[in-house]
Amino acid sequence: GDAEAGKAKAAVCAACHGQNGLAQIPTYPNLAGQNEQYLVSALKAYKNKQRSGGQAAIMQGQAAALSDTDIANLAAYYASLPADGGK
Amino acid sequence: GDAEAGKAKAAVCAACHGQNGLAQIPTYPNLAGQNEQYLVSALKAYKNKQRSGGQAAIMQGQAAALSDTDIANLAAYYASLPADGGK
Repeated sequence: GDAEAGKAKAAVCAACHGQNGLAQIPTYPNLAGQNEQYLVSALKAYKNKQRSGGQAAIMQGQAAALSDTDIANLAAYYASLPADGGK
Repeated sequence: GDAEAGKAKAAVCAACHGQNGLAQIPTYPNLAGQNEQYLVSALKAYKNKQRSGGQAAIMQGQAAALSDTDIANLAAYYASLPADGGK
């Protein structure tokens, strides 16, 4: 995936997952430094409605709007961020 | 949750998610430093078979064996680990 393109697409994600990929809300996961392939897999699972429970309904809706290219780019972007938030 | 009790329960988790909570296998998520409440939510979703796709079948099986106390303790343990692996 293209991390720069992912960054451009990530503005809506930041509302819950943080500008630096660290969620401000404890029921949401941090994404910074997460494994790229796992992020692709998780986003596709939400898109395919294979995840429910917790906050999954929100992510089903968000992921439904993403193309496979968007998913690859977002995964590359979040994987590229430092897991500790750059502290 | 009780992070020390979680650590004692986490030996089986480490096979995929790493001794330090950083997965060695790119299709698995890192858990170190993840939000505790999110980890509880995710483990319960696996236990309740609310997640499929990707590697979810493995986690459905693992989570089925966990009590709510185990889940709380494991979540506390992984949330307590440094997100960067302590580097």
